[in-house]
Amino acid sequence: MTRVLLLNPNTSADMTVRMLAAAEAVAAPGTVVVPLTAPRGVPYIATRAEAQIGGAVALEMLAQHHGAVDAAVVAAFGDPGLLGAREMFDIPVVGMAEAAMLAACMLGRRFALVTFARALGPWFEDCVAMHGLSGRCAGIRMLDGPVRRVGAVAEDSEDLLIDLARRAVEEDEADVVILAGAPLAGLARRVAGRIAVPVVDPISAALKMAEALVALQPRKATAGTFRRPSPKASTGLPDALADRIAHRDQP
Amino acid sequence: MTRVLLLNPNTSADMTVRMLAAAEAVAAPGTVVVPLTAPRGVPYIATRAEAQIGGAVALEMLAQHHGAVDAAVVAAFGDPGLLGAREMFDIPVVGMAEAAMLAACMLGRRFALVTFARALGPWFEDCVAMHGLSGRCAGIRMLDGPVRRVGAVAEDSEDLLIDLARRAVEEDEADVVILAGAPLAGLARRVAGRIAVPVVDPISAALKMAEALVALQPRKATAGTFRRPSPKASTGLPDALADRIAHRDQP
Amino acid sequence: MTRVLLLNPNTSADMTVRMLAAAEAVAAPGTVVVPLTAPRGVPYIATRAEAQIGGAVALEMLAQHHGAVDAAVVAAFGDPGLLGAREMFDIPVVGMAEAAMLAACMLGRRFALVTFARALGPWFEDCVAMHGLSGRCAGIRMLDGPVRRVGAVAEDSEDLLIDLARRAVEEDEADVVILAGAPLAGLARRVAGRIAVPVVDPISAALKMAEALVALQPRKATAGTFRRPSPKASTGLPDALADRIAHRDQP
Amino acid sequence: MTRVLLLNPNTSADMTVRMLAAAEAVAAPGTVVVPLTAPRGVPYIATRAEAQIGGAVALEMLAQHHGAVDAAVVAAFGDPGLLGAREMFDIPVVGMAEAAMLAACMLGRRFALVTFARALGPWFEDCVAMHGLSGRCAGIRMLDGPVRRVGAVAEDSEDLLIDLARRAVEEDEADVVILAGAPLAGLARRVAGRIAVPVVDPISAALKMAEALVALQPRKATAGTFRRPSPKASTGLPDALADRIAHRDQP
Amino acid sequence: MTRVLLLNPNTSADMTVRMLAAAEAVAAPGTVVVPLTAPRGVPYIATRAEAQIGGAVALEMLAQHHGAVDAAVVAAFGDPGLLGAREMFDIPVVGMAEAAMLAACMLGRRFALVTFARALGPWFEDCVAMHGLSGRCAGIRMLDGPVRRVGAVAEDSEDLLIDLARRAVEEDEADVVILAGAPLAGLARRVAGRIAVPVVDPISAALKMAEALVALQPRKATAGTFRRPSPKASTGLPDALADRIAHRDQP
Amino acid sequence: MTRVLLLNPNTSADMTVRMLAAAEAVAAPGTVVVPLTAPRGVPYIATRAEAQIGGAVALEMLAQHHGAVDAAVVAAFGDPGLLGAREMFDIPVVGMAEAAMLAACMLGRRFALVTFARALGPWFEDCVAMHGLSGRCAGIRMLDGPVRRVGAVAEDSEDLLIDLARRAVEEDEADVVILAGAPLAGLARRVAGRIAVPVVDPISAALKMAEALVALQPRKATAGTFRRPSPKASTGLPDALADRIAHRDQP
Repeated sequence: MTRVLLLNPNTSADMTVRMLAAAEAVAAPGTVVVPLTAPRGVPYIATRAEAQIGGAVALEMLAQHHGAVDAAVVAAFGDPGLLGAREMFDIPVVGMAEAAMLAACMLGRRFALVTFARALGPWFEDCVAMHGLSGRCAGIRMLDGPVRRVGAVAEDSEDLLIDLARRAVEEDEADVVILAGAPLAGLARRVAGRIAVPVVDPISAALKMAEALVALQPRKATAGTFRRPSPKASTGLPDALADRIAHRDQP
Repeated sequence: MTRVLLLNPNTSADMTVRMLAAAEAVAAPGTVVVPLTAPRGVPYIATRAEAQIGGAVALEMLAQHHGAVDAAVVAAFGDPGLLGAREMFDIPVVGMAEAAMLAACMLGRRFALVTFARALGPWFEDCVAMHGLSGRCAGIRMLDGPVRRVGAVAEDSEDLLIDLARRAVEEDEADVVILAGAPLAGLARRVAGRIAVPVVDPISAALKMAEALVALQPRKATAGTFRRPSPKASTGLPDALADRIAHRDQP
Repeated sequence: MTRVLLLNPNTSADMTVRMLAAAEAVAAPGTVVVPLTAPRGVPYIATRAEAQIGGAVALEMLAQHHGAVDAAVVAAFGDPGLLGAREMFDIPVVGMAEAAMLAACMLGRRFALVTFARALGPWFEDCVAMHGLSGRCAGIRMLDGPVRRVGAVAEDSEDLLIDLARRAVEEDEADVVILAGAPLAGLARRVAGRIAVPVVDPISAALKMAEALVALQPRKATAGTFRRPSPKASTGLPDALADRIAHRDQP
Repeated sequence: MTRVLLLNPNTSADMTVRMLAAAEAVAAPGTVVVPLTAPRGVPYIATRAEAQIGGAVALEMLAQHHGAVDAAVVAAFGDPGLLGAREMFDIPVVGMAEAAMLAACMLGRRFALVTFARALGPWFEDCVAMHGLSGRCAGIRMLDGPVRRVGAVAEDSEDLLIDLARRAVEEDEADVVILAGAPLAGLARRVAGRIAVPVVDPISAALKMAEALVALQPRKATAGTFRRPSPKASTGLPDALADRIAHRDQP
Repeated sequence: MTRVLLLNPNTSADMTVRMLAAAEAVAAPGTVVVPLTAPRGVPYIATRAEAQIGGAVALEMLAQHHGAVDAAVVAAFGDPGLLGAREMFDIPVVGMAEAAMLAACMLGRRFALVTFARALGPWFEDCVAMHGLSGRCAGIRMLDGPVRRVGAVAEDSEDLLIDLARRAVEEDEADVVILAGAPLAGLARRVAGRIAVPVVDPISAALKMAEALVALQPRKATAGTFRRPSPKASTGLPDALADRIAHRDQP
Repeated sequence: MTRVLLLNPNTSADMTVRMLAAAEAVAAPGTVVVPLTAPRGVPYIATRAEAQIGGAVALEMLAQHHGAVDAAVVAAFGDPGLLGAREMFDIPVVGMAEAAMLAACMLGRRFALVTFARALGPWFEDCVAMHGLSGRCAGIRMLDGPVRRVGAVAEDSEDLLIDLARRAVEEDEADVVILAGAPLAGLARRVAGRIAVPVVDPISAALKMAEALVALQPRKATAGTFRRPSPKASTGLPDALADRIAHRDQP
C-alpha cells in the first residue's frame, strides 16, 4: 500500500475535500490519499507574501506527518515550501504546479496556465521560473474581475475559463492547458471535450507523479544541494519542526 | 489493463529484453509491457545521423502497432522520433530520456547524465536542449575508451560508472544522477546504495510516466502544434506508415 | 568548377525546378548547381513527423550522390537531416533555413520568417531553436487558410505575403524578412521593392553559403561532435547508406 | 533624518551587532540605522528550508516595525522573504544579496560570490537566479570544511577567503568579488588591498541602496505585481502580521 | 565633499542644465554635481552610430576631467562609452540607463522603458541586453510621430507619456516605469502621482548610485576585464586621451 | 566587378597587408579587395575603450569611402563600429568576427575562439554576446604572457596556438576553431592539417560573406532598426562624417 499525503497549505478544508476527490479519481489500486489541511495561515494563498508564510506552515505540517506516509504532495499551485521540504525530509515531495507542468511537457511543446484570478499571475510566473520551465510556458491567462466564491469558481466561471483556454491555444500557441489553482481541481476532466488540446488537472498529475516516484524508490540524498541540512538549534518554532531541524526526530 | 509499448528503435533484441525486465520491475498491477525491436536500422543508435534514421523507423513501427496499445515508450535515450510520433499518433508517447529527466527534476535542482561512451555525448546534449532542460542539467559524464561489449557494459564497467556518478555529484554539483543509455537499463537499482544522490533508471521512469499519462486520460490535440497532420499522399513508404499519413487507417 | 548538390527532400520535382532557377540566378561563374529530387517521401514536408522521415531520406540521397559534388544544400526550409548529414559526410552541407537566417543576421538585428501555411510554424520554430538563433528571430508570420496549390502559392498569394512581411516589420520590429519555404523560392527578388527591409531568398542564400564554404576549404572533422561516426553494421537500409555507415564506401 | 531598519532574520544578536557596525561606517549624515534581531527561528539561516522559515519571520518582524522606519534592509545574504515584503509593505525593502549584486554590476561585468560554508552555495545560487542575474555571476566559491565559530569566521579564515577571491578572479574571470554572508560583514574594507578587483561588502551596499531609494521617493505600487495584496482573514498568525494581511493596520 | 561629474555626451547645453537640476534635487548634503557638455558630436544621440561617436567623445571628455572628480555619470540614456570608461579610468563611472534599471530592479520584478521617440527603441534595447537585464525588462514604449522640440518634449507630451506608462503597466505587466532619455529628466517627480507604479528618474538614480559607489570606496581593478589597459602609442587623438592611453598622465 | 572595402580600423598598415593577402586568396574571380588603414587611432585595438574609439574612426573612414565600393568588411576581430556602420550606410557591411562565427556555425555546433593575448578575451566575449551567439561558443582560449611582436605573433607562436586549438577541441568540446585577431590572418590555411576540426580564417570568411551579400542584392532598409538615421546637425566632426549625418552627401 502506498500512502500519499495531500498537504493543503491553505486553511480551507473544503478545498482539501475537492482536491481529495480529484486525486482519488486517478489513484492506482493500493494508493491511499491522506488529506491534511493547514492549521494556520490564510484560506487561500494568492501572493508571494502569503506563499512565504504558507510555505513555512507546510514545513511545520510535514514535520508532524512525514513519518506516516510514503510521499507528499504540496497541494497549492505555486508550490509553497516545496524546495525546502524536499531538502528537509526523506520522502519524495511533489509540487502540484511542478507535477502539472512536467506532465504537460510530455503532451506538447508549450503549456498555458489558465486560472481564475489576476492576483495569482505573478506568483505563478515566479513558480514557472523557479522550475526552469519558462521556455516551455506559452503564457498565463487569468479571469478578470473579483471572485465572489473562491470555492465555487470552477462552477461559476466554467465557460469563461474554457474561453481563456481557447484563447491560449489560438493566440498563444499553447499545445496543452493546465487549469491551475486548488479551486479548479477536477475541472479538467469535466471540460476536456470542450478544449482542443490536452488539459491537465494539477492535483491528479501530482498524485500520479508521487506514485511514480514511490515506485522508483529514489534514495534520500546525502550529498548535493538536497541533502538534509546539518542539525541546528532553533528558537520559538513548533516542537515537531524544531525537532526535525535539530535531528531529534531520529532514534 | 494498461498496455504500454516498449518500442526499441535499435535492432538489438537483447537490449529489448534488458529494458523489458527493468520496466516490468516497476510496473503497476494491471500494466502489461509489450516489447518491440526495430526490424531495420542499426544495433545501437549513437549519433545524430543514426537517430535521424532510427526515428523514422520508430514512426514505421508505431504506424503498425499503435492501435494495440494504450501508450508507447520510445526506448532509446535521446528520444529518436519522439516529437514526430507525438504529433502523428493518438496515444501518449513518452521518451526514455524525457521521462528520466522529468523524474529527476522532482528529485533535485540539477541532474547529471552518466553514460558509457563518449560518442553519445553530443546527441544526448542535443536531446537535453530539445526538451528545454539545459538549465536543469549539471553535465554529461561519459566513459572514455572503446566499449568492447555494448550489451554487457553495465556489468563490465560498473565501478567506472559509479566513479563518474560520484564526480558528477562532487565536481558538477548534480543533485540527481541519470544512468543514460539502453545498455544501462536496470543498473540504477543495483548501484543506488553506492551513489550519494538519487539515481534514475530511464526505462523505469518512462514506464511510470506512461502509466501516469494513461491514468490522466489526455485527449489527442486537434489544435496546436501537436494536432495530427492533415492527410497527405506519399511515395515509397511502408504501407502502415503511408496509410497513417494518408489517414487511410481510420474507418 | 564548383558543384553544389541542390538536394530536395520533397518528392515534388516542380519545386526542385523552381529552386534551381533561384539558385542559378545568384551562382558565381564556375558554379554548377546539381538538382536532385527525393525518390520517396511526401510531396511537401510540413510537420515534425514528415521532417523525421524526409531527413532520413536526405541521408539516403547523400549516401548515393555525395561523391560527385563539392558541397550540398538541404533544400527544404526546416533543414531535415542537416545535422546528421554534416556528421556523416565529408563535404560541406548547408541547410536552407540555416543559410537564410545567417545571411539575415548580417543584415539586421532580428529577422522574421514569413511563410504560406500555418502548419509550418511549429516545425520552423523548432528549427530556429535548433540553430540557437531564437534570440535573433522576431517571429513567424503565416498565411491563414488552406493552400489550394502549393506549387503556385508564391503567385496566388503574393499580396498577402507582402502584407505579412509589412506587419512583421511594423508590429514585430523585424529588420529583415525571410520568405520561408521551397514554394516561395525566387519570390524575394520580385517583391523586394515592396517591402521596406532587406528580404532574403533562402535557396539563394544557401547557394552562396555553400560556395563560401567551398572557397574556405574546411577540413572534415576527425574529432569533436561532427567527426564521422565509427563504422557499424546495419539491417534493412538502402545499400549506399548501409555502405556509408559501414565505411565500405572508402577504397 | 532617514531611518533604515536593519532586519536580521537570524536569531544571533552578535551578527546584528557586526552588521550594524559595517552599515554605520558608510551611512550618510542624517541616516539612522535601526537594528532588529529575529525573535524566533535559527541562529544562522543556511539552507532553503531555513530561508522559508526565516522569510516568514521577516514578514512578522516587518509587520511590527515598518511604521517606524523609512526603509528596511533584509540583512541575510539570500534575501529571505524579500519579495513578499516588497509586496506587502509600503516602504522600500532592499535585500542584502540583491544590493551587493547590483552594486557589483556597476563595477564590472561579472561578480563572484565568496562565502564561508559549502552549505550556502545552493541557496545563494537560487538567490542569484531569482534576481535574474545568473548571466552576471562568474561563480560561487565556498570554504571547504566545517565552520567552528560562525561568528568569528571572518577572522579565523581571512587568508583562506582571500585565496578563494583570488581564484575567482584568476580562474573564473570575476571582475568584482562579493564577500557574502552576514558573518563576513565589514571584512571587505579590511582586505580590499589584498584582492586585485573591487570587493563589495553586502550590508554596506544594502544601506547605501536603501538610502538611494529613500531619496528617489518611489511611490508604493497600486497596480502591477507588487501592489499590496487585497485584505484577507487569517488563522493563527501573530497579531501584527494578521492585522497587516487584513488591512486592519490602516486607520 | 563628493564631486560627481555629470558628463553629457550630447552637445546640447540646455539638456545639461535640465539634468543638473534633477540631479541636484536628490543629491546628499556634501555632494557637488559638476556639469559638462560635449564639445563635439550631435545635439542629441539617438542611434547606434551616434552612440559610437558620442561614446568616443565621452572618453575624450573624461580624459580631460577625471582627475578633478570622485565619480562620473554618463548622462545619456543608452550609456555611450560606459564600459570603455569603466575600463580606462580609476574613478567609478555610472551609466544613466544602468543606474535607472538597477534602481528599478529593487522596486519590482520588471521595469518598462518609456521614451519620446521611436528612433530610440533599438539603441535602448541593445543597452538593456548589454547590461544583461533583458529578463527584467517588460518592454519599451515609445511615442509615435515626430518630435518638434526635443528640449521641451517632457512638457509638450506629458499626457501622452503618462498614457504610455499606463499601458506598460496594464498590458506589459511592468512593475516599475523608467522615463528614459535626457529630455525627460525631472519628469518622474512631477507625474509620479498619475502612474500606479513607482517611476524612476534616470539621472536622479545615477547620481544616487554614484554617491553610493563613492561611499563604498571600491578599488580600481588591477586584474580582471576592467583593469586599465596597458600603455600604448596612438595617432591623431586629442592630447588628454592620447596621454591617458599612453599612461603619460601619471606622475 | 565587385569591390569590397577591407577597412582596417587599426593604424598598422602591415596588418592591412597581411589581411589583404588572406582575403585575396579566397576572392572569387571579379572581386577586387580595396585595402584601407585607419588614419588615426591605435596600432592594434585590444580593449573596450580602444574599440569605442576605433569604431568611431571606422565610421569616419566609411563616410569617406563608401561610395566607391559595393560592400565593406570591418577588418578587426571584435567588429568595432559594425552596427553603427550597418545603420548609417547603404552598402552591406560585414564584421570579421561576425563572419567567422556565422561560417563556423555551418561547420559544427560550437566554435572556439583562439587568440594570441589575454587582453583580447573580454572584448571578444562581449562581441560574441552582441551577436547573440554565446550559445554557440565553446569558449575563448588565449595565449598567456606578453606579445613581443604583434605583427609576427602568427609565426612566433604557431605551435602554442595549435596547442590552444587542440585543448579547445578536447577540453571544451569545440567542433570548429576560429583563429581570431588580425595578426593571425592567413594562419588557418597553414595549420589546418594539424588541428582535428575545421579551422576558420576570419578575414577570408568575411570576404566570402561580403561577396555573398552583394550577390543577394539586399535593399537598404527604410524601416526597422537599421534604417538610416534622420538628418541631423553636428559639431566638430570630420567633414565627410558630418555630411553623411546631415544627409548632405546625397545629390
